[in-house]
Amino acid sequence: MSQPDWAQLAPNAANHAPLSPVSFLKRAARIYPDKTAIIDGDTRLSYRDFEQRAVALAAGLAALGIVAGDTVAVLSRNRHEMLEARYGVPMAGAVMNPINVRLDSRTIAFILGHGQARLLIVDPAFADTAQAACAQMPEPPIIVWMRASDTSLPDTGHAYEDLLGKGRADFAPVTPDDEWAPLTLSYTSGTTGDPKGVVYHHRGGYLAAMSNAMAFEMSASSVYLWTLPMFHCDGWGYVWSVTAVGATHVCLPGIDAARIYDEIEAHGVTHLCGAPIVLNTLIGAFDAAGRTLSRTATFALGGAAPPAAVIRKAGAIGFDITHLYGLTETYGPAALCVRQPEWADLDTDTLAARMARQGVANYAIEDVAVLDIDGAPVARDGAAIGEICIRGHTVMAGYLDNPAKTDEAFADGWFHTGDLAVCHADGYVEIKDRAKDIIISGGENISSLEIESVLYDHPEIGEAAVVAAPDDTWGEVPYAFVTPRPGAALEAETLIDYCRQHLARFKAPKRVVFCELPKTATGKIRKNVLRESL
Amino acid sequence: MSQPDWAQLAPNAANHAPLSPVSFLKRAARIYPDKTAIIDGDTRLSYRDFEQRAVALAAGLAALGIVAGDTVAVLSRNRHEMLEARYGVPMAGAVMNPINVRLDSRTIAFILGHGQARLLIVDPAFADTAQAACAQMPEPPIIVWMRASDTSLPDTGHAYEDLLGKGRADFAPVTPDDEWAPLTLSYTSGTTGDPKGVVYHHRGGYLAAMSNAMAFEMSASSVYLWTLPMFHCDGWGYVWSVTAVGATHVCLPGIDAARIYDEIEAHGVTHLCGAPIVLNTLIGAFDAAGRTLSRTATFALGGAAPPAAVIRKAGAIGFDITHLYGLTETYGPAALCVRQPEWADLDTDTLAARMARQGVANYAIEDVAVLDIDGAPVARDGAAIGEICIRGHTVMAGYLDNPAKTDEAFADGWFHTGDLAVCHADGYVEIKDRAKDIIISGGENISSLEIESVLYDHPEIGEAAVVAAPDDTWGEVPYAFVTPRPGAALEAETLIDYCRQHLARFKAPKRVVFCELPKTATGKIRKNVLRESL
Repeated sequence: MSQPDWAQLAPNAANHAPLSPVSFLKRAARIYPDKTAIIDGDTRLSYRDFEQRAVALAAGLAALGIVAGDTVAVLSRNRHEMLEARYGVPMAGAVMNPINVRLDSRTIAFILGHGQARLLIVDPAFADTAQAACAQMPEPPIIVWMRASDTSLPDTGHAYEDLLGKGRADFAPVTPDDEWAPLTLSYTSGTTGDPKGVVYHHRGGYLAAMSNAMAFEMSASSVYLWTLPMFHCDGWGYVWSVTAVGATHVCLPGIDAARIYDEIEAHGVTHLCGAPIVLNTLIGAFDAAGRTLSRTATFALGGAAPPAAVIRKAGAIGFDITHLYGLTETYGPAALCVRQPEWADLDTDTLAARMARQGVANYAIEDVAVLDIDGAPVARDGAAIGEICIRGHTVMAGYLDNPAKTDEAFADGWFHTGDLAVCHADGYVEIKDRAKDIIISGGENISSLEIESVLYDHPEIGEAAVVAAPDDTWGEVPYAFVTPRPGAALEAETLIDYCRQHLARFKAPKRVVFCELPKTATGKIRKNVLRESL
Repeated sequence: MSQPDWAQLAPNAANHAPLSPVSFLKRAARIYPDKTAIIDGDTRLSYRDFEQRAVALAAGLAALGIVAGDTVAVLSRNRHEMLEARYGVPMAGAVMNPINVRLDSRTIAFILGHGQARLLIVDPAFADTAQAACAQMPEPPIIVWMRASDTSLPDTGHAYEDLLGKGRADFAPVTPDDEWAPLTLSYTSGTTGDPKGVVYHHRGGYLAAMSNAMAFEMSASSVYLWTLPMFHCDGWGYVWSVTAVGATHVCLPGIDAARIYDEIEAHGVTHLCGAPIVLNTLIGAFDAAGRTLSRTATFALGGAAPPAAVIRKAGAIGFDITHLYGLTETYGPAALCVRQPEWADLDTDTLAARMARQGVANYAIEDVAVLDIDGAPVARDGAAIGEICIRGHTVMAGYLDNPAKTDEAFADGWFHTGDLAVCHADGYVEIKDRAKDIIISGGENISSLEIESVLYDHPEIGEAAVVAAPDDTWGEVPYAFVTPRPGAALEAETLIDYCRQHLARFKAPKRVVFCELPKTATGKIRKNVLRESL
C-alpha cells in the first residue's frame, strides 16, 4: 500500500528551534516586565531588569573575549548576580560552571583547570579561596568580582557591575545552534577521587524547567525561596522553572532558621527546596520557639529519606513535603514521591513510611527502574534489591573528558546510579543503600540505611552513619558512628540493645562509636573516612 | 585558547529519546493505575484500563495490517474510544487523522483519499456519512465500528471491541524513531477551497501537552470536561495534557447546557475549553434559569474575542475565563491572554477589553509577532496593523502534499496566520481582522471585526457578520448580516444608527440583512458565501 510522503516536511525556522531554558527569561520579561523577578535583601529586580542585566553581562563577557563554547565558572552564594549569570553566561554562548562554595582551594583549582574555565565570577565572601585556587593554576581564569558590602575588593580582576556596562549596546544574545549544546558543567562532590564534570545540555535544561514547574504546580503567583544552593544541579532546575512561569525568586545567602521564617512570611513564599539539614534547622527553631507558618508552603525534600518524626513536625509547622530523589547526573529530581489520594486515610507512621520512598519518575524522565545484575527489573515485592537505573530527557550528556566513567555510567543504555533499592507493588522505588554501603555479613545483605533509619528514630541521636567493618567470622559486620544530641547521655550497649529491639538481630551494629561525623562540602557523610578509621 | 571538547558527549539510549506525548499514558498508568482516567456516561476507565485498551487497539490495528507511517482516520464524537485511539493509533506506529464529524460525505471522502487513510474508526452516529464517503472512493479504508447503543451496526467492517481482542498478547507499543515523526493529520475546515492536511509531529505534541498543562495550572487533581471536540487540534493539546498530569477526562458527546452543568457538578470539573458558542449556550441557561457553579472552573475560550457582557456573565456563573488564540497550524493555543495582577483594579469594561485580546506567546511558542509588509514588527501603539506571525515548537511540520501552500505559510521563517492585528504597549496582541476580511473603503481600512463587536454588544442580536460589498464610490463598503435573538424586533435603520453612535461614521454598515448565517462544519461563519450573495 502507498503511504503519504511524510518525510517531505522538514524543520524550518518557523517550526523548529533548539530548546533552551534561557528562552524563558525573554518570555517572562516580555509578559511580566514590571513584575518582581528577584528579591535579594534590599535589592528588587523586575523581569525587565533581570533580562537587561543578563544581556548586559553576556555583552560584557563577550567584550572580555568570551566566545561560544568557553567555560565561565561562578563561585557564589544565592545572590541575584548568580541568577543573572545563569542566563547571561549562556547568552554569551558560554557554558556555566557553578562551583560549590564549600570546596577547598585545591579542589576548586582542579575544577577550574579540568573545565578550562576562562573566567571566574566570584562572590567576595570567597575571595580568599578563589585567589588561593587561582594561585595554584598555571593559566588562571580572568576574575570578575561581584559587589562586596565592605567595598574592599582585590586589585586584580574586574568588577561585575563595571562589566555590565562594558558590552556593546547592540549585543544580541547568542542562542544555541543545537539543543544538545552544553549549558552547565557541574562537578560531583565525590566522596572519593577527583570530582567528575557533569555536562547538561540546553534541551535537558528546558525540559527540567517544565518538569519541575509541573511537578510542584508552580505558576506566576508562586514565590520561590532559595534555601537550596543554585550551584547544585541548576538548583534542581528551579533557576529555570521559577523564571519560566514568571514567579519570584527570593535569594538567601545561607541557612538561618529565623531569616528563613521571616522571608517566608514577608514575601508569601509558596515553594522551597532543600536537603534534610535545611528542614532540620527549621524544625529546631520550631522545637525551640514554636514558630509556624501562616500559610502552607511546598517543600521539596531531597537527600536522605525523612523519618516519620520529621514529616509530622514539618506538617505541624506548615510545610507540605514531597520527598524527591536525584543526582547531579539527572539534573536533580529524577523521581518524586507523588502522593496518592488514598494516602489521606493512612495513619501518620504508615504515611511517613510511604512519603519517605523515592517514588516514581518525574515528567521528563522516561523510566526509573530497579534492575538486577542481569539488567532485568526486580520483582515488585518491596524485597528484591537491585540498582536504580534511569533513562530520560534530563539525564546528563556525560562526564567531561572522562570516557571511561561516562561509558561505565551509561552501560546497557541506562544511567546507573549506584543506589540499591527495592520496588514496591505500587511501582514506587525505595532506596536501601548505596551499592558500596551494603554490608555483607554471613552471606546476608544488610542495609546500612535500614540501621541508620532505626538510629535516627532514637530521640537522643542527632546524626548516625553505619559502615561495614571487616570481621573474621562474618566477613563484614555493621559498625555505627553516632553524634548524640546536645545534652543526651547515651551508652553503646543501650543503643545496641535498642537496635536489636527494632531490627533483625544480625543487623544490629556490633560496635557504636560516638563522634562528629566527617562530611563532604555538600554535607554528605564521608563513609570512606569512617571505614578507613576502623 | 583551548576549550573543552564538548562534542565528545553523544546522545545515547540513557539520555535521549524522541519526545512523544504518547509516553505520558505509560507514565500515568504507572503512577495512577487505579485512578479514574476517563468518565464517559456510565463508563469509567482507570489509567490501567486506559493504557491496556490503547495497547490492545494498537495490537488489533497491527493484526489488521496497519504499519508505521499508515494513516488511521477516526470519525467520532468525544467518546472514550476516541481517547483510546489518540494513544493506540500512534502505538501502532500510525498517524491519527481525526475527522470533523460535521463534515459532509464528499469532504470526508476527499480527506480520506488525500491522507491515504488505510482504516477508519467510526462512531455509529455517523455511520451513514462514513458509508456515503467510502462509497465515493476507489480504494475505501477498512472500517471499524465503535459500539452502538442500539447494536444495529452495518455488516461490513470490524467491531471496535472485537478488534481489541485480535492483537498479539505480547504486542509492544511502537515508539517513534524520530520526534519529528508524524503524530496527527488534521484537515483545516477552510472557508474556501479544499481542506489542507496539517501535520503535527511527536515533539510538538509533547511540548503542547506540557505548555497547556502549565498555562492552565493543571495537576493530578484536575478534572477536564470535553466540551471542545477532540478532533480540533488534538483538542487544543488536552488529549495529551490531561493524561500527562494524571487528571480525569470527562467525555461529552455534544453541547447541551443542562448536561454540562450536571457533569461539572457531578465530577467536580476544574477545567474546560470551547469556542464562544459553548459559553453562549451556558450563558443562555444562566439567563433562563440562573444556573451557577458551586466552584469556579477555568474556561479556556478560543475563537472570537469575548464581548464585555459575556465576560461579566461568565464570571457570575463561576467561570474563570482566559481568552486564547491559535490555529490548527499551531496545535491550538499559540497565544494566551495572560491576566496581569494589576488588572484586578480595572473596571469591568476596561478589564473585558483587556481580556478580549489575544495576548502573548504560550510556553512552547518562541514568538508571536505582529509584522508589517516588510517583515518588521509594527509599533507597539495599539494602532499600527500587521499580520500575526508565529515561530515555535508547536507550529505544524507543514501541509501534507502541498508544498506551495507550505512554502507560502512559512515564508521568511515565520508561520503566517493571515490574521491582522495590532500590538499594544504591553506587548499584547489584539486581532483586528482576517486579512481577507478587511474592508477598504475610500482608502480607509475598516475592520469587519470592529463592527461585529459593536453589533454583538446589542442586546437583541444573536449573531452578526460584516463583509465588504463592492461600491462604485468608495471601492468597498461594509454590509452587515444579522441573526436577531428570538423575540427581538429589529430594524435595519435603527441598527445602522446604533452603529453610528458607537463607531466612526464611515465604519457603520451601509446595509443590514437579517438572516441565518451560513457556517462551516466547525461553526465558522462562511463570509465567502455572504460575499457571493451580494
